[in-house]
Amino acid sequence: MSHVHAVILAGGSGTRFWPASRRKRPKQLLPLAGDPNEPLIAATARRIAPLVPIEHLWISTSAALVAPTLAALPGVAASRALAEPVARNTAPCIGWACATIARSDPDAIIAVLPADHHIADEPAFREALTTALRAAEEGWMATIGIVPTRAETGYGYIEVGDAVAPGVHAAAAFVEKPNRERAEAYLRGGKHLWNGGMFFFRASVMKKAIAKHLPALAAGLDRIDAAAARGDEARALAEVFPTLPSISIDHGVMEKAEKIAVIPGSFGWNDVGSWQVTWEMAQKDSAGNVLPEGAVAVDAKNNLVLDLTTGTNGGTNGGAAGQGGAKVKGKTWALVGMNDIVVVETDDAVLVIPRERAQDVRAVVDALTARGEADRI
Amino acid sequence: MSHVHAVILAGGSGTRFWPASRRKRPKQLLPLAGDPNEPLIAATARRIAPLVPIEHLWISTSAALVAPTLAALPGVAASRALAEPVARNTAPCIGWACATIARSDPDAIIAVLPADHHIADEPAFREALTTALRAAEEGWMATIGIVPTRAETGYGYIEVGDAVAPGVHAAAAFVEKPNRERAEAYLRGGKHLWNGGMFFFRASVMKKAIAKHLPALAAGLDRIDAAAARGDEARALAEVFPTLPSISIDHGVMEKAEKIAVIPGSFGWNDVGSWQVTWEMAQKDSAGNVLPEGAVAVDAKNNLVLDLTTGTNGGTNGGAAGQGGAKVKGKTWALVGMNDIVVVETDDAVLVIPRERAQDVRAVVDALTARGEADRI
Repeated sequence: MSHVHAVILAGGSGTRFWPASRRKRPKQLLPLAGDPNEPLIAATARRIAPLVPIEHLWISTSAALVAPTLAALPGVAASRALAEPVARNTAPCIGWACATIARSDPDAIIAVLPADHHIADEPAFREALTTALRAAEEGWMATIGIVPTRAETGYGYIEVGDAVAPGVHAAAAFVEKPNRERAEAYLRGGKHLWNGGMFFFRASVMKKAIAKHLPALAAGLDRIDAAAARGDEARALAEVFPTLPSISIDHGVMEKAEKIAVIPGSFGWNDVGSWQVTWEMAQKDSAGNVLPEGAVAVDAKNNLVLDLTTGTNGGTNGGAAGQGGAKVKGKTWALVGMNDIVVVETDDAVLVIPRERAQDVRAVVDALTARGEADRI
Repeated sequence: MSHVHAVILAGGSGTRFWPASRRKRPKQLLPLAGDPNEPLIAATARRIAPLVPIEHLWISTSAALVAPTLAALPGVAASRALAEPVARNTAPCIGWACATIARSDPDAIIAVLPADHHIADEPAFREALTTALRAAEEGWMATIGIVPTRAETGYGYIEVGDAVAPGVHAAAAFVEKPNRERAEAYLRGGKHLWNGGMFFFRASVMKKAIAKHLPALAAGLDRIDAAAARGDEARALAEVFPTLPSISIDHGVMEKAEKIAVIPGSFGWNDVGSWQVTWEMAQKDSAGNVLPEGAVAVDAKNNLVLDLTTGTNGGTNGGAAGQGGAKVKGKTWALVGMNDIVVVETDDAVLVIPRERAQDVRAVVDALTARGEADRI
């Protein structure tokens, strides 16, 4: 499929990994999935490299993040970065990518992939991707539905309909995040898959769907596209983009359109949603701890300590998510009588939080925002 | 009393304040009692300044600690530092101080005071001290007994006997650390006081008591004294000191000698025994937290966080025990959902421990010792 393109959605600011993730260094630019040398977005690009030539790899991100994002993706040309002047959710962003790619490749088949997920079984993932791209080639707007492994209330679900091709089903419905009871019913029922935010379609099909279901967006995108054709895209973007409707592709298009397919996938998908997940994914010692080299743990179990300082040692201190690689002998970390906590230190901040409250890191970001301390977020 | 001298015992290595206290920077050199600019030993010297002229202030410490100790005590001459070549507990150390002081002032009355305690009510303390020195002048070997405020099992006690002068009692017995039941009985009974390790005596009286109860020590001290008189003290010290019996002044002399007095004192005495005590003594916010400036606390109560790093900010980050004084804007500390913990960070180590386990910091030092990582202790 020589017309296959991929758009990696990398505009997220991600507050759940504070203090490691920051406005200027969001989650997808951090190596949070075990390999201290590979940011999540680099892993995303590497995973699909066998299916998508690098010159067909596009990155949707914010203007402020273009430089660090390209730095994390050697070999990707600056022209492949689609910098949104403001964030307007996924529909405008995907619509703009679609229009841009279609200008040079009207027969483009596009895979849209989040930048910040982890996938354990990459061959199985690529197999599902191939199936989804084939469905897209045949005119479906396809998504991959992750086979649930628990009654998760934090994700949207996709209800599976009839099989339409080998490994491909019609999508009966997109479902909002369920409550606990409903999530358990979904898990038992076996007809609902997690919506992992991956979409596959012909550019021409998506353009038509947007025109039908989001005409205001289509009109705006046409203005940008026309300006781009005459070499005046930057001004049009700055002018038009902020006026586009802020809506997700799920709500704006997928839930309403016809011929929506879902490909069930089981490949160790993980949305790397919190420090809790980082602990789950990391290599642990016999006491369940993830600690910097040389740490002392006394009566301490199931803790995650990440020393991400770059400080006076001329390098990082390692740890599961250490940046930069070289493990040097850093601070002596000592935990006594502490269980199930997360401690993350960066050059300018330290977080201490119970693992099970890892989601509440947002509260710190909220407090700093309320104080107007933007430089600490 | 122009013959009053004071000997501050400052040889302690103190592992209970790791990572702030280190072999080369023990507890008494740290500002652990609330004023971030005043090491405990400096407070000890300041407290007695109205009673003891500075040229009569002697410091007993180890050779390795002479320089930092003198640095903490501006105005004290280097000749006033009594550097023990090896630690042999308090009897040899006090005996040697006694002999040294008596050479130039045979009528010396000596107060021996630990370097690392805190006293809240300084005038009341000086009043007790004056009473104790008066008793010493009259030939008693006196000690101050702290009136207990709780059934403490971590201290030795002194049993109070008959009154022998206003505010002065004979000491009926020195008692080892009691068990819980006995400590409670002591508290109810009102006849037992805490042994705070403060001693007052004429040099001549102590010399006689040592000669009687610790003849081996007396003989060794005589050799050192004779060598000192002919200007050869250093060699004699190095030769003799390691051979002296290692025994406390309490066990070796006070428990056995006659005419031992105790002066009951109530002046907010605190032995600053652990990070728990530091938290108790510190100024706390409305949630009971002691936090570095600018910290964020969400659902977090009764914590002690000390950022003692000197790092890249060109200064310390403050906190109750911050060293150096100037509070600059340092790291953003964030605690979410954590209660009753202690976090202490220095330039080369971080400790996380529940407040109630603060004594177990020793386990960290033990672990580092076992690993042979002396530079981290």
